Amino acid sequence: MSENKHYVYAFTAGDGKNKQLLGGKGANLCEMTQIGLRVPPGFVITTEVCLDFLANPSAGLPAKALEQIRTHMLQLEQMTGKGFGSATNPLLVSVRSGSAMSMPGMMDTILNLGLNPTTLRGLIAETKDERFSYDAYRRFIQLFGQIALGIPKEPFEELLKDAKTNAGVVSDVELTKTDLAMLTLRYLTIVKEHTGRDFPEDPYEQLLIAIQAVFNSWMGKRAVDYRHQFKITKDMANGTAVNICVMVFGNMGNDSATGVAFTRNPGTGENEFFGEYLVNAQGEDVVAGIRTPKPVAEMKLEMPAIHEQLLELRERLEKHYREVQDFEFTIEKGILYCLQTRNGKMNAQSMVRTSVEMVKEGILTREQALLRIRPEDLEQLLFPRIDPKAKVTAIAQGLPASPGAACGTIVFDADRAEAQGRLGAKIILLREETKPEDIHGFFAAQGILTSRGGKTSHAAVVARGMGKPCVTGANDIHIDMQLRKAIIGGRVLSEGDLISIDGGTGNVYLGEAPLVEGEFTDELVTLLSWADAIATLKVMANADTPQDAKRALNYGAMGIGLCRTERMFNAVDRLPLMVDMIMAESTADRAAALERLIPIQRQDFIELFTVMAPRPVTVRLLDPPIHEFLPSEIQLRNDIDNLRNLRSTAQGMEQLVDTLRLLDQGVADSAQEVVSVLAAGLHRICNNRAGERALNEKQRMLRKVREIQEVNPMLGHRGVRLGITYPEIYRMQIRAVLEATAECIKAGVKVNPEIMVPQVCTAKELEVVSAIVDAVRTEVEAAYGFKVPVKFGTMIEVVRACMRANRLAASAEFFSFGTNDLTQATFSFSREDAENKFLPFYNNNGILQDNPFEVLDIHGVGRLMKLAVEWGRGTNPDLKVGICGEQGGHPSSIRFCQYVGLNYVSCSGPRVPIARLAAAQAKLKEKEYHFE
Amino acid sequence: MSENKHYVYAFTAGDGKNKQLLGGKGANLCEMTQIGLRVPPGFVITTEVCLDFLANPSAGLPAKALEQIRTHMLQLEQMTGKGFGSATNPLLVSVRSGSAMSMPGMMDTILNLGLNPTTLRGLIAETKDERFSYDAYRRFIQLFGQIALGIPKEPFEELLKDAKTNAGVVSDVELTKTDLAMLTLRYLTIVKEHTGRDFPEDPYEQLLIAIQAVFNSWMGKRAVDYRHQFKITKDMANGTAVNICVMVFGNMGNDSATGVAFTRNPGTGENEFFGEYLVNAQGEDVVAGIRTPKPVAEMKLEMPAIHEQLLELRERLEKHYREVQDFEFTIEKGILYCLQTRNGKMNAQSMVRTSVEMVKEGILTREQALLRIRPEDLEQLLFPRIDPKAKVTAIAQGLPASPGAACGTIVFDADRAEAQGRLGAKIILLREETKPEDIHGFFAAQGILTSRGGKTSHAAVVARGMGKPCVTGANDIHIDMQLRKAIIGGRVLSEGDLISIDGGTGNVYLGEAPLVEGEFTDELVTLLSWADAIATLKVMANADTPQDAKRALNYGAMGIGLCRTERMFNAVDRLPLMVDMIMAESTADRAAALERLIPIQRQDFIELFTVMAPRPVTVRLLDPPIHEFLPSEIQLRNDIDNLRNLRSTAQGMEQLVDTLRLLDQGVADSAQEVVSVLAAGLHRICNNRAGERALNEKQRMLRKVREIQEVNPMLGHRGVRLGITYPEIYRMQIRAVLEATAECIKAGVKVNPEIMVPQVCTAKELEVVSAIVDAVRTEVEAAYGFKVPVKFGTMIEVVRACMRANRLAASAEFFSFGTNDLTQATFSFSREDAENKFLPFYNNNGILQDNPFEVLDIHGVGRLMKLAVEWGRGTNPDLKVGICGEQGGHPSSIRFCQYVGLNYVSCSGPRVPIARLAAAQAKLKEKEYHFE
Repeated sequence: MSENKHYVYAFTAGDGKNKQLLGGKGANLCEMTQIGLRVPPGFVITTEVCLDFLANPSAGLPAKALEQIRTHMLQLEQMTGKGFGSATNPLLVSVRSGSAMSMPGMMDTILNLGLNPTTLRGLIAETKDERFSYDAYRRFIQLFGQIALGIPKEPFEELLKDAKTNAGVVSDVELTKTDLAMLTLRYLTIVKEHTGRDFPEDPYEQLLIAIQAVFNSWMGKRAVDYRHQFKITKDMANGTAVNICVMVFGNMGNDSATGVAFTRNPGTGENEFFGEYLVNAQGEDVVAGIRTPKPVAEMKLEMPAIHEQLLELRERLEKHYREVQDFEFTIEKGILYCLQTRNGKMNAQSMVRTSVEMVKEGILTREQALLRIRPEDLEQLLFPRIDPKAKVTAIAQGLPASPGAACGTIVFDADRAEAQGRLGAKIILLREETKPEDIHGFFAAQGILTSRGGKTSHAAVVARGMGKPCVTGANDIHIDMQLRKAIIGGRVLSEGDLISIDGGTGNVYLGEAPLVEGEFTDELVTLLSWADAIATLKVMANADTPQDAKRALNYGAMGIGLCRTERMFNAVDRLPLMVDMIMAESTADRAAALERLIPIQRQDFIELFTVMAPRPVTVRLLDPPIHEFLPSEIQLRNDIDNLRNLRSTAQGMEQLVDTLRLLDQGVADSAQEVVSVLAAGLHRICNNRAGERALNEKQRMLRKVREIQEVNPMLGHRGVRLGITYPEIYRMQIRAVLEATAECIKAGVKVNPEIMVPQVCTAKELEVVSAIVDAVRTEVEAAYGFKVPVKFGTMIEVVRACMRANRLAASAEFFSFGTNDLTQATFSFSREDAENKFLPFYNNNGILQDNPFEVLDIHGVGRLMKLAVEWGRGTNPDLKVGICGEQGGHPSSIRFCQYVGLNYVSCSGPRVPIARLAAAQAKLKEKEYHFE
Repeated sequence: MSENKHYVYAFTAGDGKNKQLLGGKGANLCEMTQIGLRVPPGFVITTEVCLDFLANPSAGLPAKALEQIRTHMLQLEQMTGKGFGSATNPLLVSVRSGSAMSMPGMMDTILNLGLNPTTLRGLIAETKDERFSYDAYRRFIQLFGQIALGIPKEPFEELLKDAKTNAGVVSDVELTKTDLAMLTLRYLTIVKEHTGRDFPEDPYEQLLIAIQAVFNSWMGKRAVDYRHQFKITKDMANGTAVNICVMVFGNMGNDSATGVAFTRNPGTGENEFFGEYLVNAQGEDVVAGIRTPKPVAEMKLEMPAIHEQLLELRERLEKHYREVQDFEFTIEKGILYCLQTRNGKMNAQSMVRTSVEMVKEGILTREQALLRIRPEDLEQLLFPRIDPKAKVTAIAQGLPASPGAACGTIVFDADRAEAQGRLGAKIILLREETKPEDIHGFFAAQGILTSRGGKTSHAAVVARGMGKPCVTGANDIHIDMQLRKAIIGGRVLSEGDLISIDGGTGNVYLGEAPLVEGEFTDELVTLLSWADAIATLKVMANADTPQDAKRALNYGAMGIGLCRTERMFNAVDRLPLMVDMIMAESTADRAAALERLIPIQRQDFIELFTVMAPRPVTVRLLDPPIHEFLPSEIQLRNDIDNLRNLRSTAQGMEQLVDTLRLLDQGVADSAQEVVSVLAAGLHRICNNRAGERALNEKQRMLRKVREIQEVNPMLGHRGVRLGITYPEIYRMQIRAVLEATAECIKAGVKVNPEIMVPQVCTAKELEVVSAIVDAVRTEVEAAYGFKVPVKFGTMIEVVRACMRANRLAASAEFFSFGTNDLTQATFSFSREDAENKFLPFYNNNGILQDNPFEVLDIHGVGRLMKLAVEWGRGTNPDLKVGICGEQGGHPSSIRFCQYVGLNYVSCSGPRVPIARLAAAQAKLKEKEYHFE
């Protein structure tokens, strides 16, 4: 450090904007002082001194810093007319930590520093209040002992309790001055016992010990852990400052008081003064809850003049900071001091309301209003949730797979869920895991709970798509399908038992937890309209059905960025057609099955296009491996075994009766009564043609399942690979899109369809599908007699597609990054396996900062995207580029998308509002973006 | 085309190097003419004329071209003193196609063009040989009719047969001039019948029809298919030239002859004159096999002067072309003409021998010698193979998974294979697919045949590693393990039946096919030593055991680039230890199992290091998902069902006896004799403690298998992810490497070990493992009292590792591209699934040119590699970089590796010689490499 460097800044001199140097608290104290608010005099020791000291703690504080601290203490003496250590008119100070980010675990506040037997006399002389003075001394010894000297709290508390017992009183305030005087002596003994030294009496020694203790607390375990957990980097906060401030006392009589306040109501955002105060008390009394504070409104009657000053302070603070303030104040003998201020922490609703109102009041610009809200917090507003005030305890925890909360009775299978749903029952579908054939159960259920699978399991993805709450992978729940029971811990749950799930936290509750509904307030609508006006990134939704699309539109989606056609086949009346298509033994059989699918899919598209008109709707051709539509090998084997067992039991019983008859007609006759009835029943069920057919069908399906089963289905025969090897499937889908478009045009509906090819790795694949589109379009246009426009593009979800982006851009009018699959391929992580196995370990142990399936991995996946955008636009400068992976709804990912120049993001419907706000913020903060 | 452009070049004027313009045949005719060899006069019509013509065939040949053709025909008339169409001294020509690449399917040769009734008279007058003349005319009509007019061959053949029948003779040469004269008339009738027109008599009309027919044949289906199949691009050959050449006749008496010859023996490479000739015959007679040609050596006696000339021709051709020549010659009345020459096609052995000898003879430089051999062809020399001369027919075909051929008796399981192998039997292990527990069967078998799995299935990979022949995925073979029979087509094969497999073609033969042994000749050793001296890429081997390493060393490996430690655990005595490790319920149990593995692994490393000393040995830490070491879920379920069935059968039998006794003591007594013996036996097997334990153990294993089972194991919990979540595994392996190193140093063996981490995606993973290496090294060094050097590096097989190469290079001393996994991730293709499902379709339909698992995908995977090398070396310019995927042994991949500046390639042992030659060629052709 240079000779002229400032190690210390008076509140009158420090730069109120420089929180990194002065800490948040110190900077605000400087700022308030300099704008003329009444703050007790004081100064800040900078974070640089802290870092300097911590580099070599044994050397103590730098000499220059010590010198400047002394100089500033002298100035405080001059300003107050008091003396530090004075026996007549002693200067007392508070010592407080304060880094750029507020952080629990660092040393907090030492009050009344400077007291010792000598200055105590001075304080008594000055205040003429012995009880107050001993009380101040007692408080100082305890705080200093605990915080600066590291003595545990208990011995102090113990002695205080003893004192009250001895005095026969209940509360601290009932202790007399003598009781308190005795207590100070006992406290000093404790310090001696614990430190082996006398309590330091020299005020400067006290001050230096306190300062160093604050500095050391920066590297204390709790503070370090906190920074690690909340990812506070050195750029955000590095070292703590120390604030030295002249003491003012709220406990000097009934013209004194202390309190805390918010400039607006932090719970609702309403523009009303909100706070509490205590007359004749020190700040810690408010927090400690020994006396019940009063709402600030009461002050209007009790201390009207001060109340006026407080209202003025409120207004000046908010005008100045242009942000709701959370501040502390003390009134010492009728004089109001502001001791601290900071931005108020508020819930999402309050943030949205204050944002919009402060713009209308001229305090904020729209840009500032948009920037002050964390987009993720909007999620709170949009889903029903467990009432945060409810006293409920989770009985199990899974993964928060689809946000929102739901209550209902347990049902173990989709058929029963549907049946009960029809009767109006509220249901939670509880399964080990779900399959496409369970889809009707999803429609009927309030929420879905599974004991297996990750955030991308079937249950999770489908529930998110439908906007239904879902908790997956709740491993502690064991389901016995035969008994139709679930066991959680020791509890046995039966069908019909009531549970609640919270898809935002993954918690599962017994019984009906109270819910709070989500809201889309007028303020939110206003705020998001501002966001849309500023953002350059469009926000689309991923939606698969007309119902999804309607919901997405309500959320403000500007189009459908991803419609997964295969989802259309999951409905219970359609799945059998899909299965027929898969089981087809010949191209002709397959074509016949597809012929039956066409009208269904065309009708879906007509509805979807009509709902979204005239917005773009991007239809992705069939993507998943087809075995996803069939039962698993193990399921089929079980079914076959069961059918066979029934058959052989039936046969066995018949034989048994025959054998008995052979041996002893009498026994046989009596046995037969029972057995033959059973046998006949079984025979009827199993041994007739229907049973035969069922068994044959299962066996045929098993053969098919084995034939198409894959070692790594994620990397298997799917997407465009299916579309090329079985072109009749894509041809059917393309025909459905184009005919639906034509029907809409005929009906005067303005539509904007796009066809998108999944899993493309080479330009040739795209050319083959493009040729099918051209051929079908020619036919459809001939049939309808007018042009049927459609855009043609590709998913970019295979790494090779990024590498060949220059080629793909020659055939594609748009790219859509499928960052779910792209992330899997880039990391070589199968999401389901990773999230169930090693990814939590990786996140907890700092191998990876985030789950890359939730937060876009900028440095790996992002770098690939950047190359692909550059290379693609190199071929086709007008190439439209978007993202439709799950990360498309994540604010930090959206910032990156803005940086690399995407045209749109597409996310699940409920995340659309979040994405809209994030897109506006991304635009506003575009210039600040850094990509290494 | 410009006015002055040459459409036509005389043999005396054309550029003998410009095969693209003149075709291979035309260029060589020009070249030979110009170096003074006796070639009949002629000229070449360029490929440009061909392309011009094909652009608009209905317009006919360009006028300028026609003009130049006439000019050159006039020159031929002047040179020969004959007249085209002359009734006294007619000029006859041959018309031949010839593109830059030799290509079947294009029109070949028309001889004797220019004949018609008028010129026929002239020919008779000139040659005084009516029979010869009619014969020439007959041949011309047939060739022209077939080739230029598209008339089928059969009617001509039919008439020829009739003529011989009528004449009562057997061979053509016995036909009289009258027979032949009649035949020409009949041939002319056929032409009229088929074309509806008279046979064209105008020689110029004949010439133009022939030229256009040649041009059209370039776009004929067969030629197009051929170019497609053999990937002949326009850069390689575009259009065909036409060669017009004055006819010379080898059938003008006993001083005339025709023949073909090689300048050296193409079968052995020996430097001896090799060829055949026929006296008084035309070229087609040699090919047609009507008369048996004589070896050229006989000509020394029969026509000594000509023989002398031929020897001189041989010498001049080879000196000039610096390549073994395959040439055609004709002797017309004692004068030797050379009609065509081209580079001789030879097998690998001949190529190697001639290469080395021609260098020694001063004909070639070493560089030229190295460049003239296709590296892949060396494979022929290194493995035993089915004798190509043997008449055997394949009964089934699978994938050529590991080269070489083997014969042996079928065995269906590894235990029996081992037992029979000990008795000295030659065995082919035949299974549906193989598992690690089959490994002892591999050691015992001559070759492995599976009915399922791809080229990267367990069987394929292990067999390649061992250098054993292997055919996988032979779908036509159905195995019934219970009957111990295999069914192929209608054939039922039992254990003990003899079969042969060819791992180079995938063919399976019944019985013992005759084998030819692989050879490593002195010439090959010499050639490869030259290659090593020129190459800058080092060639390492992938080898997992000391035995593999010894073999690799024999193949010339310069080190081990990839030692897969998990392979060490596949041996039958080690697998149970590995299973114990996996089944361990606690870290302590796992550590105990690992303690037992350490000495085994250390001993392996000591042997491996000692074999390879002082060459580098790169040890890859455990990579595959651990469930690969356990049986499959379905296998375990079957085992458990079987055990349970046995138990219940035993119980059931006991109950049966009891029931019988209850009903009728007599029947029971007699039944009991049989049943009780059976029941007791079953009881003993199944119902005692051992049975109980076996069942429990299987059930415990089933639970574990279910616990660790993954949806996409390729992308699952494996490699460094296992190493980080279960650090004790890597710690054991690292300890084994370091202790083995220390032991070798102690024994005075110079070793060069490297530790390599698989599946890395982020620098932090590498740092964690690096810290383990440092910690263990400190301990080992302390224990041994000296430094234990080891290099530390990473596989680059995860796409993200490429993107983060700059970071990884900070912790890694070397990179090794694992292009098997990297290709899977780049394409999102699971290799096994792709090769069994859609990849063959993709290759056959031109979606992808090659199988990217065999030939490095330069544009996708290669581009990633290029970025990773640049970024990695940006951080660490001395970074050693290699490749250890299977493509590392493929010549075109090696060229790319040279281009991106790798330091080494590593491949399976048997591919090392191929890679050594390819590395030298890559260096020599470095400058020509183009990467788009």
